[in-house]
Amino acid sequence: MDASLGAQEAGAAMRTGIWLVGARGSVATTAVVGAAAVGTGAAPPTGCVSEHDDFREVALPGLGELVFGGHDVARTPLPKRAEQLMEAGVIPHGLADLVREDLVRADAEIRPGVTAEAEDQAAAVATVVADLEEFKRRGNLERVVVVNVSSTEPPPTAHPAHSTVRALRRALASGEPVLPVSSVYAMAAFLAGCPYVDFTPSCGARLPALVELAHERGVPCAGSDGKTGETLVKSVLAPMFARRALRVRSWSGTNLLGGGDGAALADPARAAGKVDSKARVLAEVLGEPVEGGVHIHHVPDLGEWKTAWDHITFEGFLGTRMTMQFTWQGCDSSLAAPLVLDLARLMALAHSRGVHGPVPELAFFFKDPVAGGEHALEQQYAQLVRWANGPRVTQ
Amino acid sequence: MDASLGAQEAGAAMRTGIWLVGARGSVATTAVVGAAAVGTGAAPPTGCVSEHDDFREVALPGLGELVFGGHDVARTPLPKRAEQLMEAGVIPHGLADLVREDLVRADAEIRPGVTAEAEDQAAAVATVVADLEEFKRRGNLERVVVVNVSSTEPPPTAHPAHSTVRALRRALASGEPVLPVSSVYAMAAFLAGCPYVDFTPSCGARLPALVELAHERGVPCAGSDGKTGETLVKSVLAPMFARRALRVRSWSGTNLLGGGDGAALADPARAAGKVDSKARVLAEVLGEPVEGGVHIHHVPDLGEWKTAWDHITFEGFLGTRMTMQFTWQGCDSSLAAPLVLDLARLMALAHSRGVHGPVPELAFFFKDPVAGGEHALEQQYAQLVRWANGPRVTQ
Amino acid sequence: MDASLGAQEAGAAMRTGIWLVGARGSVATTAVVGAAAVGTGAAPPTGCVSEHDDFREVALPGLGELVFGGHDVARTPLPKRAEQLMEAGVIPHGLADLVREDLVRADAEIRPGVTAEAEDQAAAVATVVADLEEFKRRGNLERVVVVNVSSTEPPPTAHPAHSTVRALRRALASGEPVLPVSSVYAMAAFLAGCPYVDFTPSCGARLPALVELAHERGVPCAGSDGKTGETLVKSVLAPMFARRALRVRSWSGTNLLGGGDGAALADPARAAGKVDSKARVLAEVLGEPVEGGVHIHHVPDLGEWKTAWDHITFEGFLGTRMTMQFTWQGCDSSLAAPLVLDLARLMALAHSRGVHGPVPELAFFFKDPVAGGEHALEQQYAQLVRWANGPRVTQ
Amino acid sequence: MDASLGAQEAGAAMRTGIWLVGARGSVATTAVVGAAAVGTGAAPPTGCVSEHDDFREVALPGLGELVFGGHDVARTPLPKRAEQLMEAGVIPHGLADLVREDLVRADAEIRPGVTAEAEDQAAAVATVVADLEEFKRRGNLERVVVVNVSSTEPPPTAHPAHSTVRALRRALASGEPVLPVSSVYAMAAFLAGCPYVDFTPSCGARLPALVELAHERGVPCAGSDGKTGETLVKSVLAPMFARRALRVRSWSGTNLLGGGDGAALADPARAAGKVDSKARVLAEVLGEPVEGGVHIHHVPDLGEWKTAWDHITFEGFLGTRMTMQFTWQGCDSSLAAPLVLDLARLMALAHSRGVHGPVPELAFFFKDPVAGGEHALEQQYAQLVRWANGPRVTQ
Repeated sequence: MDASLGAQEAGAAMRTGIWLVGARGSVATTAVVGAAAVGTGAAPPTGCVSEHDDFREVALPGLGELVFGGHDVARTPLPKRAEQLMEAGVIPHGLADLVREDLVRADAEIRPGVTAEAEDQAAAVATVVADLEEFKRRGNLERVVVVNVSSTEPPPTAHPAHSTVRALRRALASGEPVLPVSSVYAMAAFLAGCPYVDFTPSCGARLPALVELAHERGVPCAGSDGKTGETLVKSVLAPMFARRALRVRSWSGTNLLGGGDGAALADPARAAGKVDSKARVLAEVLGEPVEGGVHIHHVPDLGEWKTAWDHITFEGFLGTRMTMQFTWQGCDSSLAAPLVLDLARLMALAHSRGVHGPVPELAFFFKDPVAGGEHALEQQYAQLVRWANGPRVTQ
Repeated sequence: MDASLGAQEAGAAMRTGIWLVGARGSVATTAVVGAAAVGTGAAPPTGCVSEHDDFREVALPGLGELVFGGHDVARTPLPKRAEQLMEAGVIPHGLADLVREDLVRADAEIRPGVTAEAEDQAAAVATVVADLEEFKRRGNLERVVVVNVSSTEPPPTAHPAHSTVRALRRALASGEPVLPVSSVYAMAAFLAGCPYVDFTPSCGARLPALVELAHERGVPCAGSDGKTGETLVKSVLAPMFARRALRVRSWSGTNLLGGGDGAALADPARAAGKVDSKARVLAEVLGEPVEGGVHIHHVPDLGEWKTAWDHITFEGFLGTRMTMQFTWQGCDSSLAAPLVLDLARLMALAHSRGVHGPVPELAFFFKDPVAGGEHALEQQYAQLVRWANGPRVTQ
Repeated sequence: MDASLGAQEAGAAMRTGIWLVGARGSVATTAVVGAAAVGTGAAPPTGCVSEHDDFREVALPGLGELVFGGHDVARTPLPKRAEQLMEAGVIPHGLADLVREDLVRADAEIRPGVTAEAEDQAAAVATVVADLEEFKRRGNLERVVVVNVSSTEPPPTAHPAHSTVRALRRALASGEPVLPVSSVYAMAAFLAGCPYVDFTPSCGARLPALVELAHERGVPCAGSDGKTGETLVKSVLAPMFARRALRVRSWSGTNLLGGGDGAALADPARAAGKVDSKARVLAEVLGEPVEGGVHIHHVPDLGEWKTAWDHITFEGFLGTRMTMQFTWQGCDSSLAAPLVLDLARLMALAHSRGVHGPVPELAFFFKDPVAGGEHALEQQYAQLVRWANGPRVTQ
Repeated sequence: MDASLGAQEAGAAMRTGIWLVGARGSVATTAVVGAAAVGTGAAPPTGCVSEHDDFREVALPGLGELVFGGHDVARTPLPKRAEQLMEAGVIPHGLADLVREDLVRADAEIRPGVTAEAEDQAAAVATVVADLEEFKRRGNLERVVVVNVSSTEPPPTAHPAHSTVRALRRALASGEPVLPVSSVYAMAAFLAGCPYVDFTPSCGARLPALVELAHERGVPCAGSDGKTGETLVKSVLAPMFARRALRVRSWSGTNLLGGGDGAALADPARAAGKVDSKARVLAEVLGEPVEGGVHIHHVPDLGEWKTAWDHITFEGFLGTRMTMQFTWQGCDSSLAAPLVLDLARLMALAHSRGVHGPVPELAFFFKDPVAGGEHALEQQYAQLVRWANGPRVTQ
């Protein structure tokens, strides 16, 4: 079967929408620029996992056929944001001009975001549902995948309304604002029949009530926290130590972040979720908690860039002590944006196959995979390829 | 099936000999100390891959049941070498005393090594064969695995006699010294019916004539160049970049080596083989040659330790350039010794199953696996576990 | 003038006591072992600044003539502590045995320390004064230098009694516990006529009331926070950037600490003083505050060792952005102990010359020099050498 | 005295020429762009040492008053080269346009360079002398400073003609090509009465015959090998270890170079001079040779950037072994260009004061200072400031 036949399977005129929560952020802007540039052949698909040969026969929407929209509380138009990213070295000079029309078109589809202060959450959910439905209708879209790429929230306070759809509906009906903003979006996505992806460590679709809702509405969800840099490296180094029976004694990670997320994560309350999600891979892969911890520090001068330093002590034969260190100097938007595109395509596939609820087979993309997903990168990749190429039956 | 049943499968009173070429070197000494310490429960089997749960049902000789002997041109007795390693921090204080008897016993089984100047190589081969046969008889050993852990040789000059057993025998009979020393040992091992492992990048069993001989004599061989540090890391990082569709643009490795091998590798002729073997993984995994190279520098002050620094530039979405660096501060003997024990056990298994010629399923252990073996660590591990647990039939 | 004449200047039978607050800690134990080992020629004076040729003609007490005593709340005897440091690789194997007698003698001079809970601080001061006077008498000592090497305190709460000797005496007389423990020791030192050194960032002699007391009693004081690792490097790198007119844009320091001080500094309240003192050098040398900060994380597995990672971004000609990083893997006790000996000798000199109050010329040794001392290392060294070799007149 | 008076001292209409050997290289292009940008206030003088307050009262030519010319064998015009440097991130976008006129003017003053194959060196010298004299006349210049910023030559073969002016003249007259190209330029500079600076490790003015000629013609010379990155750091770290009496045991430097000089230095013969010059600071400052060495590897992908990794082992009190590592990720042109401007200004000053022969007081700028200059950075800086502000008398 070749790619065009695959495409037929999923609908003759497949047009997929991506609705980005945080649609004027660096990741979203880079995703819009990149989808246009790669879609028209102006740039190679570097960093796009779904463009690997292993997915050649999978019926995925084409990168150039994705239609963008989203929510944001920020007002700077996308063409302006693209220029800023060009100045910062995230996007090559000239490229923003080339795809200016795509940026203008996507910008016209951005609606004002829900703020944390929204008191009437039932109304907020309804607004988002309406925005999604209009976007789908206006664009004549087969389906819309919602991806949260907004900045990290603090972990939510537990509330009984989080447990079931019924309790949640009752609380919202009574006017009680029980949901973190990310969960408002997740709820609206499910009600609108849209797949939803948590690309940040925010709460999003993780509440039991929302997982229940996803199943109820027959839509898939995935997350959480895109694995773009330090944790990606951990997900191959930790298995390496385990395979070689070397005992990891400490693993200390320090992350210097500039720009947007750096500022958000300078707040320890917000950082808590991130730190937690970054730490999980070690305990999972090594089979025991390891001392050291993950630390996040804000260094505005780094701008769109981040540098992580990991210091690992380990023990070899007869207890000999050794050390490994690495630094990762990455541009988060460049690392995240292609994964956002990958996830939109793969979630469209899942939706077309009738998958509903959490999709553990997408663990490859996340620091903290839903539903007990695998943590070692190679196993995650194998699982992903198997799943994507699996039998085209409705689950 | 439990481990003791597994052991029965391979012979009731399984006693396996390890014959170490370079038997008074740091790796060999650490292996002797460690086998005794772990065998008696005085130390945990950290670093021993074959002690993983995945091998629990495989019929491997016990670590405490291995019997050591070997060749060396050096004369310092093993108990003295163990003291030196204690001073250098490779072996814990006190441990050498604890296993003194084992060291003395192994030392008594060490014979003078073949030197590079040996003119009559037919006689040298015969002497090694005799040494191996006497060791086996004296110890009442089921089988003897020969492992080359001596210092690295320069790559050999090509010679027509390397092509076939027949040509090789003829050249040796005529008194022409056509073999590098490592290959003298490999030839003798095969003639004596012993499995042979190239733990260094030296030529050893790689000559077509010797591969033919291994098949002829029905013995397995494995190699080459134990993957102990920098290359181990490469074998997980290179697949990571590949999986994420990130384009590696340069990968420069610098190795600062102290002690024995450092001095040998300060000679560019000898280093050539090592550098070549270290570089292979990148081209194999990334699918194209990558600029940067591998460099080896001798820093005697590092003693038994080595530090590697790898600097990697890579490209993400839309061509954004990023950098990763790592340093690995390791003790080569502590990393290598348990692998030597693993290999002896696994080659004993291969031999007991009638495997002959190169064993690509042991690629996990080597920088430059024989017979087109896999280069990515996770795939290597999966292959190893499958092979070791595979059907106990003669190939 | 030669060294022996210098020695005569300071008294024919010069015997100097060092009274260590925290006398059973790693730094103190290493200092006792080292003074004995170097004093008898069993070890070279590596790390001892006062053994430089530049101080050859300065009348300093000999390293082997120092007499040790001190306070500690811990009870493990010094010979046992020395063994622990041997196990940890801080002290060479064998050395603790060689100087066992010196350890036993010093241990016999250790008195129970003042605890933070001491309610009657007037009584606590009196006890310490008595301990110091008895130590001096018993040892027939010319003078006793008190050095605080105990673990770091949280910064003290401001109190009016800290302003003048008169107010301080009144508060203590009224039974009010207004002093942090380190300042109890500083006060007692001054009352007993002893020079006092703050080798930690704790409050110690910094209170205006205590500075006044030091002048009143005619004794010198110095501090604070011994510059042993990361900050030492900063004190040469920051001037380098300044000299080259390169603009430092961010400087982030991360310190992974094991052992004693690591645990103390895991408490953010205690770390505050340290972080503050470590950060000062940059603002002072670069002439403006620099973003990035200093972070301290506790990694017990590192034991007596620490690793610091500093990440510096800077700007060159036409705004080009560049990066420097360094890691420092040091053993704090090995770095601190010889400086403690240096300071004891130099403070004995200051005392013999009648210097009183803060000695800014010792800035070379400290992260946060008293009395507005210089922060750039070379200037500090030049100032130190000039001062030590200066005219032997009473100030 | 204020700056304008200082300027008067050196001549009312002070116009200084800089003649760059390698005038179309990255360093030269950056220097031309930068002098124009800083001179007109379009960029701050970051990286220009001579703009420090310490030189405020020194009579230096203004940055905007420098007139550029030079030799090069390359033909790409400067405006094009500036665009390339903009693409490479060395020069900010937009700046090359701003100073386009200056680039065109400088480009018009570039003459074809002398090639290594030139057989008639007497003629080559005469051509360069003529080029310099015409440049001076055409620009109505007070003086012209020649600075060699071309790529590194291999160390020259010793020749008797290198010893004296007389022998050198005789050899050239006889048609024997005895000079490396850099020395052809140095000789011509002296004959034309121009100060000459070796900014590379090439031979240049170092030959005794040329030093004699500089004195004879009354012109100053300086060098060699601009200290831009790794060696700059060494020149403060080595004194730090020395001051603290810490014993450096090994110091291994690895340099990954892209672009122009990287390619030149991939040739071991050419690298020899560089390596030698980079290594000198350690032996000089530490008082003994240190093992480890300096290594240079070419990584074209790094382009205009270089990364150095230095690994240092050192010994503290009682022999405890510690490690420091640093990486320096720099843009050589950005680091070198402002120093080239500094040197042109300071050599103009030296010339105006009648200084002739090597100027050791400029050691601050060089890896391998002429005439036994100081190697520690702070001492070098103090010496430079003293010298520049010194009495305006002819030596």
